Amino acid sequence: MRGGIDLGGTKIQAVVIDESDSVAGQARRSTPRDGGPADVADAIAEALEEAAGGTPAALTGIGVGSPGTVNEATGTVANARNLPNWTNPFPLGETLASRFGVPVRVGNDVGTAVEGEAVLGAGRSFRTFLGLWWGTGVGGAIMVEKHRWLGRGAAGEIGHMVIKLGGAKCTCGRRGCVEAYAGRAAMERKARRDQKHGVETRLFALMDEHGHDQLTSSVWQHALDEQDAYAEKLIERAIRALGAGAASAVNLIDVEAVVVGGGLGTRLGEPGVARIREAMLPHLFVDDRPPEVRLSELGDLGGAISAARLAPVKL
Amino acid sequence: MRGGIDLGGTKIQAVVIDESDSVAGQARRSTPRDGGPADVADAIAEALEEAAGGTPAALTGIGVGSPGTVNEATGTVANARNLPNWTNPFPLGETLASRFGVPVRVGNDVGTAVEGEAVLGAGRSFRTFLGLWWGTGVGGAIMVEKHRWLGRGAAGEIGHMVIKLGGAKCTCGRRGCVEAYAGRAAMERKARRDQKHGVETRLFALMDEHGHDQLTSSVWQHALDEQDAYAEKLIERAIRALGAGAASAVNLIDVEAVVVGGGLGTRLGEPGVARIREAMLPHLFVDDRPPEVRLSELGDLGGAISAARLAPVKL
Repeated sequence: MRGGIDLGGTKIQAVVIDESDSVAGQARRSTPRDGGPADVADAIAEALEEAAGGTPAALTGIGVGSPGTVNEATGTVANARNLPNWTNPFPLGETLASRFGVPVRVGNDVGTAVEGEAVLGAGRSFRTFLGLWWGTGVGGAIMVEKHRWLGRGAAGEIGHMVIKLGGAKCTCGRRGCVEAYAGRAAMERKARRDQKHGVETRLFALMDEHGHDQLTSSVWQHALDEQDAYAEKLIERAIRALGAGAASAVNLIDVEAVVVGGGLGTRLGEPGVARIREAMLPHLFVDDRPPEVRLSELGDLGGAISAARLAPVKL
Repeated sequence: MRGGIDLGGTKIQAVVIDESDSVAGQARRSTPRDGGPADVADAIAEALEEAAGGTPAALTGIGVGSPGTVNEATGTVANARNLPNWTNPFPLGETLASRFGVPVRVGNDVGTAVEGEAVLGAGRSFRTFLGLWWGTGVGGAIMVEKHRWLGRGAAGEIGHMVIKLGGAKCTCGRRGCVEAYAGRAAMERKARRDQKHGVETRLFALMDEHGHDQLTSSVWQHALDEQDAYAEKLIERAIRALGAGAASAVNLIDVEAVVVGGGLGTRLGEPGVARIREAMLPHLFVDDRPPEVRLSELGDLGGAISAARLAPVKL
């Protein structure tokens, strides 16, 4: 049995998988908003213990998909903007290894999830594809023959491709990035600002009704289900940005396919993917053979399953 | 001796190179504006004969770098938007082969030139780099270990990455592409429109004084030398677009370097490259180790020399 953690800005998803990569147990926690890296590590451990159903001793290894700057060699994580007070490098791998007494490998969250899709999911039939991970931020990964194209180590940042010079301020501090329009965090920031200025929307009422304190992917889905005009407008704006960014990426690297995942990507599902596909068309330079655009197949648990596959198998 | 042709929207550059890739002769013609592919092929043949100095019989093979859709297997070229009436496939390779009685290979113009830089020029010390070809249009090529990354065959179209959603109309018919701001053709179109509306600029007077009938790269350089405020404004606008496009590309593929070539890129030289480097900085996601940004080294003859290298060497 291997344990896998998908560490996100909103939630921590833990799974336990068996030798054939099937899910044997899973648990979910909200990501702590306060405290620091040690508190996040505690929440991870609790989620993993719950996923292991009281028998964490059966785990032979653990893999973690983490945001921020991940040092895969040492298992430290730094600059995780969506996690509390997590700027300096924190030995996440070591902390979990000493708690569970098994080897731990830490990888980049989006890269790990997209690698999972390449082997087990929507990317498995493509020689080359782009993973487009639409969640709190917008991440990406370029896959070539089941391997991630890393460049000098940081390739895949489709969320920070510029699609509107001088445009909206991004969570990264720059302007006009895809993420400034399509990242869940940026969308929430805009919605709160617009609400203050009197815009009408059920988004925040739905958030309260469903017991959330932020505009989670499920809140956006509820608002779309209710045909909330403002929510629809912001989602359309996000999809236009994703379409322009994904088409720009395809014009540059001409991959066979785009696989859409991430919290919002997974939540909006096939209808969302169809809209992204449509939004790419006006910008594709070679427009008579658009790339395939597919929904990720490993779903909500995909990041955690892919992370578990990072862990060494017991021989 | 091998012959090489750089076929551009403005000029046809021919060279003859010897066994050590040194230039033994060269000639230049304006690209015909009227007629069709056969007239362009005639002009190519004349330029090559002149470059060969009356001994075209010494040629063992010919290479052509061509715009448009190039079928490298058959030597046909289609959809060359900047060449006269050249939409349908025309057997350019076959036409030249029967005229000169030697094998002819036709390759993509920008790809061929960037391959030349990878082997002989500014890209030779990099494992991975992006060629950014700034001319009548804006082209590009991604080099990995001296090989072009082709994707499904059309990779490298950095000129058609979207940097301003809903922005200026591009020569390709779409909106907000890099080329809509930075392509020489698009810049000239805008300048002519603005002049009609009374904007003050010496651009068109300089064009006449230097005996041109379009705003060539040298006309732009003259206007910058005179500190023409309007020309400076349009060049700044172009450089902002190139900077955003190149930075977006680096955020996605994280290459070691960007090599700048093309008619305008070569003409504006190191000062232009310094400005592109500067314009990339605000958009680089990993901003503590920007890529190298270098001027192409093969210069004005680079495209033709690189094309000549496509031709088979006589054994």
